[in-house]
Amino acid sequence: MSTIFSKIIKGEIPCYKIAENDSFFAFLDIRPMTKGHVLVIPKHETDYLLDLDDQILSEMIVYSKKIAKAIQKAVPCKRIGLMVIGMEVPHAHIHLIPINAEKDMNLSNPRLKLSEDEFQQITKDITSELENI
Amino acid sequence: MSTIFSKIIKGEIPCYKIAENDSFFAFLDIRPMTKGHVLVIPKHETDYLLDLDDQILSEMIVYSKKIAKAIQKAVPCKRIGLMVIGMEVPHAHIHLIPINAEKDMNLSNPRLKLSEDEFQQITKDITSELENI
Repeated sequence: MSTIFSKIIKGEIPCYKIAENDSFFAFLDIRPMTKGHVLVIPKHETDYLLDLDDQILSEMIVYSKKIAKAIQKAVPCKRIGLMVIGMEVPHAHIHLIPINAEKDMNLSNPRLKLSEDEFQQITKDITSELENI
Repeated sequence: MSTIFSKIIKGEIPCYKIAENDSFFAFLDIRPMTKGHVLVIPKHETDYLLDLDDQILSEMIVYSKKIAKAIQKAVPCKRIGLMVIGMEVPHAHIHLIPINAEKDMNLSNPRLKLSEDEFQQITKDITSELENI
């Protein structure tokens, strides 16, 4: 059965898409820890990040770096935190989270509720920056 | 000025070393979130993980995958969570954290206090597994 992320990749479930290439897909987390929280996933459905082969894992971190650079330009923040938990959806994903302090990555923080307009604006801001990277 | 991590690499500050090669160094976090919490750092002092060039960043994630596989064999857990915060020490590092549930990666959890014997046993268990990977 397809994961929810595979359905997002196929367009069967809508998302705020940030970028994609042949191997990866990036989109806004719909329950963001902070504004600009993005998920990067491999298109090939693999449950666990550390089960990815070395080549695709390397490409995924380099792809995530590029997305993170764009987020950092689009969203005021000190750093982009990275997190891989692997318990939520059985499809490997890297969380890219704009942070100003360590506590911004605290999983017990309530998730933000953003409006449709806010999600669209963030998407536009990050994708615009990506074009210049 | 050297970071505390550069001093650990040079042996000027003691640590529970897990592994090293020409480019990277892995050791136990002295304030672990869970038993088997390891830090992987590049030997070349770089503040921010996303400032590493693509080649070394790729090598670092592949090196971290290898260490994570050994941790997972040595420490009972469901997954190895990855985290990069980048606010604590100005020397890029990847946290590898054995977890059984998402809450195990909650930064507000109190850190474990382990005995010298416990740290040494964990070091031995992980390094033994590494020899077989």
